[in-house]
Amino acid sequence: MDYRFSKISSSIKKSEIRELLSLTRKPGIISFGGGLPDSKLFPTKEITEITEKVLHTKGYLALQYGPTHGEADMISSLIKFMSDFGEKAEHDEICVTSSSQQGLDLVSRLFIDESTPVIMELPSYLGAIQAFRRDMANMIGVKMDFGGMDIGMLEREIEKLEKKKTPPAFIYTIPDFQNPSGITMTLDRRNELVQFAANRGILIIEDSPYRELSFTGEILPSLWTISGGKGVVLLKTFSKMLFPGMRMGWITAEKEIIDKIIMLKQSVDLCTPSFTQLILSEFISRGNMEETIKKAIELYKPKISMMLSELQKNMPEEVVWSKPGGGMFLWLILPEHIDAKEVFYKAIEKNVAYVTGQPFHCDGSGKNTMRLNYSFPSLEGIEKGIKILSEVIKEFICKK
Amino acid sequence: MDYRFSKISSSIKKSEIRELLSLTRKPGIISFGGGLPDSKLFPTKEITEITEKVLHTKGYLALQYGPTHGEADMISSLIKFMSDFGEKAEHDEICVTSSSQQGLDLVSRLFIDESTPVIMELPSYLGAIQAFRRDMANMIGVKMDFGGMDIGMLEREIEKLEKKKTPPAFIYTIPDFQNPSGITMTLDRRNELVQFAANRGILIIEDSPYRELSFTGEILPSLWTISGGKGVVLLKTFSKMLFPGMRMGWITAEKEIIDKIIMLKQSVDLCTPSFTQLILSEFISRGNMEETIKKAIELYKPKISMMLSELQKNMPEEVVWSKPGGGMFLWLILPEHIDAKEVFYKAIEKNVAYVTGQPFHCDGSGKNTMRLNYSFPSLEGIEKGIKILSEVIKEFICKK
Repeated sequence: MDYRFSKISSSIKKSEIRELLSLTRKPGIISFGGGLPDSKLFPTKEITEITEKVLHTKGYLALQYGPTHGEADMISSLIKFMSDFGEKAEHDEICVTSSSQQGLDLVSRLFIDESTPVIMELPSYLGAIQAFRRDMANMIGVKMDFGGMDIGMLEREIEKLEKKKTPPAFIYTIPDFQNPSGITMTLDRRNELVQFAANRGILIIEDSPYRELSFTGEILPSLWTISGGKGVVLLKTFSKMLFPGMRMGWITAEKEIIDKIIMLKQSVDLCTPSFTQLILSEFISRGNMEETIKKAIELYKPKISMMLSELQKNMPEEVVWSKPGGGMFLWLILPEHIDAKEVFYKAIEKNVAYVTGQPFHCDGSGKNTMRLNYSFPSLEGIEKGIKILSEVIKEFICKK
Repeated sequence: MDYRFSKISSSIKKSEIRELLSLTRKPGIISFGGGLPDSKLFPTKEITEITEKVLHTKGYLALQYGPTHGEADMISSLIKFMSDFGEKAEHDEICVTSSSQQGLDLVSRLFIDESTPVIMELPSYLGAIQAFRRDMANMIGVKMDFGGMDIGMLEREIEKLEKKKTPPAFIYTIPDFQNPSGITMTLDRRNELVQFAANRGILIIEDSPYRELSFTGEILPSLWTISGGKGVVLLKTFSKMLFPGMRMGWITAEKEIIDKIIMLKQSVDLCTPSFTQLILSEFISRGNMEETIKKAIELYKPKISMMLSELQKNMPEEVVWSKPGGGMFLWLILPEHIDAKEVFYKAIEKNVAYVTGQPFHCDGSGKNTMRLNYSFPSLEGIEKGIKILSEVIKEFICKK
């Protein structure tokens, strides 16, 4: 049969990164390619205990349909969790989502029509690019340096759009330990960005999956907090600080936006599982979440130190990289004439994998960049893998 | 701030039924309004045991990201489950979804552009109407009698569309114990429908949440089976036969369609929780699912019998209703001049609630219809509630 698909379905592309990663599934590979938390961290014992308790005392709730915006217990736990990290939100400013990818999906559909301009960082999160591309947004990239988004360039791009009477639907940013770059936006730029967006009446989408995973203890105020909860939609998830298997996230925004999101979510999946919400809610209120975050930080800190010191020792001086203060990723920039995809095929031959940087650029730039994950590989793997990768890169630099 | 929302977000309407149901939250109410399985059925003990085992033996998988199309174990269990009920599918013809509402959401986005015609029953499932309306489909209703969709009318509607060179994206139908009507499509009509759609090259979306809940033991072959797996997308869920809190469903279709669905789902929520998939997979392979379905049937059978006999005893002869052979709903048709919404307000005063039928009609018809749920209220509630409802309706009939 000849199926007639929608326009949206033809705008979806196969993920190049998934294709590349499928080449890396061979024994003995050292992979900097994934975005996975270390499964050693998973508190299976606590989750088992809590699940038993939840099913025993609240089974009738846990296994039944729940409200679209989320279980009351879960929302209370989220408010407490946010407040532990210096953020404030009211009950009616929160909608629980089935992972933060759903948060991106809902935001994309709520604000994007065909050709609607949206602003995002170069590079930015792949899941966001996928969702916005699917909805046929006109994605406009703004460069970053190691202090975050280039606010001057942002202003120029927005002025261009305003001249054409096509203001952007929003500015999408990941200010804390960004995926893919590991870069954190400085406090000054946060203030500038919020001020600028408020003056122009432009919404900010703040995606913040890594904020709590700070290696130094320093956590900068979120854009949500700086803005006083106006004009910012904050996307959160437990996939990175706890584990991804529960697919649990939440959106924080002004009630006007949350109400629209709830209506949209009704047609998308009715509600996020009450089962997993009640488990996580208990996990948070017992203090287990804080504990798990601490453990993750303890586990990842020596890994990033190892990666940074091995890079320092082994990489040729033409190569630069970010110095992440938290999160799971480091960004590596090769000299402009070197193609990170060519390097990838060579590295794979020597059993080292990573992710090329170009797919993270909405404008197709970034051929000479790559993302290195340090949360999943072992310390020994990092040590050995960076040495090998440095050798491979050196060969490319000498050749050209 | 003045937010600029997308076209889609302005096409979403508040659910009238939710508004009405909010009036029914008062003590002592007998509600035929919900669509909830009886929570007495929830096998919390088995789920606790299984969760413990899954976390103990497969915690690293259960709490990590999983493949977008679903966990291999889960897909094998689904194939086994389907085959127990006479249906056949291959691994690459299945995509696990986060509830069957997500199935509807994905199908809607895969096939509907603005103004794309789609065909659906009068009445039909509210969640489908919501998703198709959101995506701005041109919904065309085809009447049903107690044997299912009127195939003659279907043919005429499609001819009209073909004359205008705007063939429908699909025919959406719920052939088994339909929500809201409780009607089952006869075998003859199933054959006719599949034949007709195949001849015209029109896709069928078969939504089948209730199929296994047959009170008589009779289960008709699905359209998926009749078609030999060509030109039919089958949507399934465990929300009705087991419990909704896990939000677990799946789509079965030709590989060509499943591949597109997987790509779309990647941008929607990356994957359905591995945690709940592995629990349900074990639940199915242990034979617990069959057991739970049997228990549900045992629990619902006396309830539908009670409802049917009380209707027979008490309703005035101008009123007709469906005789569901399974599922959770019964459909009641009042004389045309009576508005089921007016009846609703009177019934609520006497502590009986139901859902008005009009919102289930994509063309706004059906003012004189209502849906009665019998799975959730108790036997005593059904007996008393139907008596009261009959009295209220009698008053309306006498008045006019």
